[in-house]
Amino acid sequence: MNAAARDSAPRPRHLLTLAGIDRDYLAALLDRAAALRVRFATDPRPLDLLDGRTVVNLFFEPSTRTRTSFELATRRLGATAIHFDVANSSTRKGETLEDTLATIEAMGCDAFVVRHAENGTPERLAAHARHASVINAGDGNHAHPTQGLTDLLTLRDRKDRIDGLRVAICGDIRHSRVARSAIHGLQALGAAPVRLCGPATLLPDQAEVPGCELDTDFDAAIEGVDAIMMLRLQKERMTAAMPAGEDDYFKHYGLDAGRLARARRDAVVLHPGPINRGVEIATDVADGPQSAILDQVHNGVFVRMAVLASLLEPAQAA
Amino acid sequence: MNAAARDSAPRPRHLLTLAGIDRDYLAALLDRAAALRVRFATDPRPLDLLDGRTVVNLFFEPSTRTRTSFELATRRLGATAIHFDVANSSTRKGETLEDTLATIEAMGCDAFVVRHAENGTPERLAAHARHASVINAGDGNHAHPTQGLTDLLTLRDRKDRIDGLRVAICGDIRHSRVARSAIHGLQALGAAPVRLCGPATLLPDQAEVPGCELDTDFDAAIEGVDAIMMLRLQKERMTAAMPAGEDDYFKHYGLDAGRLARARRDAVVLHPGPINRGVEIATDVADGPQSAILDQVHNGVFVRMAVLASLLEPAQAA
Amino acid sequence: MNAAARDSAPRPRHLLTLAGIDRDYLAALLDRAAALRVRFATDPRPLDLLDGRTVVNLFFEPSTRTRTSFELATRRLGATAIHFDVANSSTRKGETLEDTLATIEAMGCDAFVVRHAENGTPERLAAHARHASVINAGDGNHAHPTQGLTDLLTLRDRKDRIDGLRVAICGDIRHSRVARSAIHGLQALGAAPVRLCGPATLLPDQAEVPGCELDTDFDAAIEGVDAIMMLRLQKERMTAAMPAGEDDYFKHYGLDAGRLARARRDAVVLHPGPINRGVEIATDVADGPQSAILDQVHNGVFVRMAVLASLLEPAQAA
Repeated sequence: MNAAARDSAPRPRHLLTLAGIDRDYLAALLDRAAALRVRFATDPRPLDLLDGRTVVNLFFEPSTRTRTSFELATRRLGATAIHFDVANSSTRKGETLEDTLATIEAMGCDAFVVRHAENGTPERLAAHARHASVINAGDGNHAHPTQGLTDLLTLRDRKDRIDGLRVAICGDIRHSRVARSAIHGLQALGAAPVRLCGPATLLPDQAEVPGCELDTDFDAAIEGVDAIMMLRLQKERMTAAMPAGEDDYFKHYGLDAGRLARARRDAVVLHPGPINRGVEIATDVADGPQSAILDQVHNGVFVRMAVLASLLEPAQAA
Repeated sequence: MNAAARDSAPRPRHLLTLAGIDRDYLAALLDRAAALRVRFATDPRPLDLLDGRTVVNLFFEPSTRTRTSFELATRRLGATAIHFDVANSSTRKGETLEDTLATIEAMGCDAFVVRHAENGTPERLAAHARHASVINAGDGNHAHPTQGLTDLLTLRDRKDRIDGLRVAICGDIRHSRVARSAIHGLQALGAAPVRLCGPATLLPDQAEVPGCELDTDFDAAIEGVDAIMMLRLQKERMTAAMPAGEDDYFKHYGLDAGRLARARRDAVVLHPGPINRGVEIATDVADGPQSAILDQVHNGVFVRMAVLASLLEPAQAA
Repeated sequence: MNAAARDSAPRPRHLLTLAGIDRDYLAALLDRAAALRVRFATDPRPLDLLDGRTVVNLFFEPSTRTRTSFELATRRLGATAIHFDVANSSTRKGETLEDTLATIEAMGCDAFVVRHAENGTPERLAAHARHASVINAGDGNHAHPTQGLTDLLTLRDRKDRIDGLRVAICGDIRHSRVARSAIHGLQALGAAPVRLCGPATLLPDQAEVPGCELDTDFDAAIEGVDAIMMLRLQKERMTAAMPAGEDDYFKHYGLDAGRLARARRDAVVLHPGPINRGVEIATDVADGPQSAILDQVHNGVFVRMAVLASLLEPAQAA
C-alpha cells in the first residue's frame, strides 16, 4: 500500500493495544515517527501541529521515563502537557476513576495518557470519555502499545524490515505488557513466529500467546535470531523463579557476549529499560555495538509524537 | 450599569473573598468568563494577554482539580504556570510563609494562587506581597471565591439571572468555604434568601450567615427552589453527624430523583465535586439532565481566566 | 579585557564549580546576567534564545527555591523545562544514575541541572553525558556555583567592584557548598582574603580553604568588612556545636544590629536563604536597608539565565 492509500486509512480515536491493529495504520505511524525524527535532527524547535490541544498524563503507577517521553512529545507538537498528580488526587477522596476523567475532560482536555496497574483501565476510561482520546501507557500485563511501536521502529531501522524477522523475547514474559505489545506488533508486520524464553514460572500459557514458540532454554531460543529483546526482571519475581538468586538467574537467562554469539552476527539487542546490569544483561552487551537500547529511548519520543499527532490533529481537507 | 461603565470600575489587586464584593465587578468577571468561553469554543489556541507573566500555584492542602483548573487558565492566557512544591519546600525547613512568598515574588512572579487549611492565610500573604496579586483558592472554611464565581456563572447560564433566584445549599455547611462564597455571591447579585440545610451539627450559627434561612429538614428546604447545591461530605464528619452511617445520611440528606421532584421542575443541581455517589447524591441525579456538575467544571477554567486577566493584565489606555 | 575579548573566551560545556574558573568567563557571566536583568525590567516576555532546547531539573535533594529559579530561567530563555521526578524514578528500581542520565539525554535533552547530597555527582554525570551540559545546582559540601555567581553579582551591584573587597562569611562553613563557591568566586575576582567565622566545630580545616582567614570570634571577624555573608544553620548541627541551644548560638554567632555596626557603615548583608529569623540573623537586620537577601533571589534567576544561555546557545558566526 502506498503512502497516499495509507493516509486514507481509518483514523482511530484511541490507542489501547496493538492486538488486531491495522497493518497499514501501524506502518503509517512508524513512517510518521521516522519523518518527525528527520525534522527534529536538524531543527529542535516545537511544531505548532497541536497548538491549543491539552494532553494529560494520568499515571497511577510510578513512572518517569514513559511520562517524560510523553511530556516531551506533547510539547514538541505545540500542545500543552498537564501532569495529573494522582498522589494528591480526588480518586483518593473516593471519587471514581470515571468521574476523575470526566472532570478533567470538562476542563477542556483532549487526550489522556493512562498508566494503571489493572488490565483494561485505559479501555474502561476510553469508553467513558466524551470526546477525548485515551492512550494506553501501560496497563497491568496487558499492553504498552507505544513501547511496542518503539521496538518496531528501532528494529526496522536496523534491519530495514520486520517481515520474516526472527525475534526472541527473554525474561519475565508472563507479567510483561511490553512483551505482549511487541508480539502483537511483530505479528501485524509479518515477523516469523516469536520465540518466548524464560523460566517456566515466568512463561505465559501457550493459549495466551497464539503463534509464539515457548522455550525455557535460552541458548536454544536465541539460536540464529535477528533480534533479542531482554525484559527487565523484578527482583521479587526472580526470587520466586530462581531461589538460588541473581547469579543463578544470570547464568541461565542473562545475556552476555558469549551467549549473544549464538544469535546472528548482526543481531540487535533491545531492552525497554530500566536495565539491571548483571542481572538480565551484561554491561558489555548493554553498551556494545549490537545494543539498540538508547535508540529505543530516542525513538520513543518520536513514536509518541506520531501517535498524538495521529489521534489529535485536526482532520485535513482531501 | 452598561459594559463601558463596568470597565471603569475600580480594579482590585487581590481576590480573597466574595464577601462585600462590588456587584458590578462581580458581574464584569462573569461576563468576561462567558466571553472567553465563546472564544475558546471555536479556537483553543492560547491568548497572549498575559505573555511574560508568571502565576504560582501555592497549595498547602492537596488538590488536583482546582490546581489543574488554575494551571490551564494560566496557560490559556499565555502566562507561565509554576507549581510550588510545598512538600519539599523551605517552609518545612523553618522558613516563615511570608518569607517563602517574598522569595518567590523576588524571582519575578506576578500572582500567587493560595490554598491553605487555615482561615485568613491568603489575606495575610496578600498584605505581605510587594506587588504580586494573591488569589484565594480556598482557605479553611472561610472562602473559595473562584468556586463561588463558577457556581454563579453556571446558574446564570441556566436561569438567565441570579436576581430573585431561590437556592438551597445542603450538606456540611459549617465546614464549607464553598457554601460561604456561594452565599456571598448570590447575595451580591440579589438572589432570594439562601436556604441552608443539613444535620444540626453541620449547620453554621445563624449569626455567621446573616440573611440565610437554616433548616434541618431537607424536604422542606428544597420545596420550590430554582437550584440545589449539594456539598461534598467528608466521611469523618458524616460519622459524627450520623452515627447510624451512610445509609441513614443519604435517607435524610441525600439528593435522589424523588426528592429532587420537590424543587421546581427546571431546578438546577450543582455540586463543587468531587462527588460521593450514593452518599450525598444519587447517580441518576448526578448524571441527569438537571445536573450542571460538569458545566461547573468547564466554567471554572474560564472564571479563573477572567480573574487572572482582570488582576494581571496591563492597564489599558482610556 | 574588553567585552569583545571576553566574547572570544573559550566556552565551557559544563558548570560544575567556581574553583579555578577563568576570571574573564566569570565576569562575562555576571555582565550577561546584568544585561538580561535590564531587558526583563522593562519587558517580561520570554526570549527565544534557547527555543527548542530542553533543560532537565534532576534534584536528588529536596529543593524548591533553586529548582524554581532554574525553571523560571529556562522558560524565560524560551527553552522547555522538564522536572525529573526522582521520588518515582527508575534509580529507585536499581538503575544506575549514569543510565538514568543517558536515558533522559537520549530523549533529546540538552542540559541537566543536578543537585545531589554526594560531592562530585554532577562531575561524574558530566563525564558520562554524550553531548548534554551539566550544571551543578549543589553537591554535598563541595560547590554551588550559580549561588556563588549570584552572590558576586549582588555584591558587585552594591559595591561596584569585587576587587579588594573584604568579606566575612559566618556560620556552618564546614558543611557549606555555598561558602566554598563564594570563596572561589571572590578569589577569582581579586577580593581580599575571605574571613571565615563560626564555632570551631563548624569551621573547615585551613588546608581546605587556602588564602582564607579562620576565626571563631564573630566580632573580630566582621570588624571593618564590606560584606557579611550569613549561612543558614541546620538545627542538628547547631545543637552539636552549641549544646546550650539557639539563644547561645545567636549570642555568639547571630547577626543583630549592634554587631552589624562593627562592619563598615555601608556593609552589605547576604544570606543564601532560607533564613532562620532569630537563629543566625535578627529580623531587623534581615529586613533592614543593608540586607541584600531578596536582591540575591532576584539576581539568581538572571545568573541562571546567563549560565544556561552561555552553555546552550548556538555558536555564533564571528
